[in-house]
Amino acid sequence: MMLINSEDKATDRVLNAIAHMPTRSLDAVVEKDFFRKLTDADFMRLATHLARKSYDEGGCPIGAVIIDNASRAIVGKGHNTLVQDDDPYNHGETAAMRDAGRRDFSQTTLFTTLSPCDVCTALIGARGFKHVVVGDVTNASGNEDVLRAKGVVVEVQEDPAGIALYRQFRCENPDLDLEDWKGLAAVNNKNALR
Amino acid sequence: MMLINSEDKATDRVLNAIAHMPTRSLDAVVEKDFFRKLTDADFMRLATHLARKSYDEGGCPIGAVIIDNASRAIVGKGHNTLVQDDDPYNHGETAAMRDAGRRDFSQTTLFTTLSPCDVCTALIGARGFKHVVVGDVTNASGNEDVLRAKGVVVEVQEDPAGIALYRQFRCENPDLDLEDWKGLAAVNNKNALR
Repeated sequence: MMLINSEDKATDRVLNAIAHMPTRSLDAVVEKDFFRKLTDADFMRLATHLARKSYDEGGCPIGAVIIDNASRAIVGKGHNTLVQDDDPYNHGETAAMRDAGRRDFSQTTLFTTLSPCDVCTALIGARGFKHVVVGDVTNASGNEDVLRAKGVVVEVQEDPAGIALYRQFRCENPDLDLEDWKGLAAVNNKNALR
Repeated sequence: MMLINSEDKATDRVLNAIAHMPTRSLDAVVEKDFFRKLTDADFMRLATHLARKSYDEGGCPIGAVIIDNASRAIVGKGHNTLVQDDDPYNHGETAAMRDAGRRDFSQTTLFTTLSPCDVCTALIGARGFKHVVVGDVTNASGNEDVLRAKGVVVEVQEDPAGIALYRQFRCENPDLDLEDWKGLAAVNNKNALR
């Protein structure tokens, strides 16, 4: 009955389809056991497909996935929507949390394609996350140690496709990148100084 | 033509109606000069009406208003939607920012009924706000000095109605209050220790 079964391989085709599917629909399309066998690298690749989806929509390419630690089921996922929703602050992390809804996040793991900004770092602590996996510490904030100081276990699981995509975006659209981190005030200030 | 004119007084009836109106509709219903004469206490009362709206919906009673410094026009407003949107983090401040959209917040003033949490404090800094007015430093975080250290001018404009409403809410629903600040993980942890 299910389109994706536990015997299926976690190919990019399959992970991309899952990235595009509403989280609430996954139970009807993907066998539970499929998720059990996914590695951290697979979940990071799924988050990278969400980043790619955002980039294709004209937005900032950052994605995130939250899984339940016991079942490895996806409970929330999303991507940055600065452009798409005209939202001054909806990062991959917050998009995935909104998708997950009110939940005890201490029982979950958050995969994010990009090292969390200062605001998301505060939020990850304030919502009780205990386990975060980061896909890109090259283009990023360096807040991993701030999270560790809050008692969060932080692992780095680099995805070369995600790192390359973010680097490309930053080259193509430095003002959008700056706005996403520091707001339009910082962009205006930078351009006024030119 | 306008329902609310510049000669009208800023009564609770009028401010409550404005609180309930979509921000984008205000230009069609309220004369621009009406907003010019509003004091900081009036805008805080408007934020308190947004807090009351949230309380009446079963949610957390915290509201916020963002005005343009030059015109005193409202550019964004909103209230906490933890309960209403099943959203682990949409505080009054973020609700007002989402309503305002992508904007140079250094040219605005943020009125919030309650002292900002750690996450909103980081966000206010990262979005370039320079002026924040806080309505309740009694029930609250004490982050005013953290904001000042970021170069934000912080004023306290207490609204007794807002302070009383938040105190009542915290008494009636301490778990919801804790969830809004620290997440469901903190609530479960507290209840497990009982």
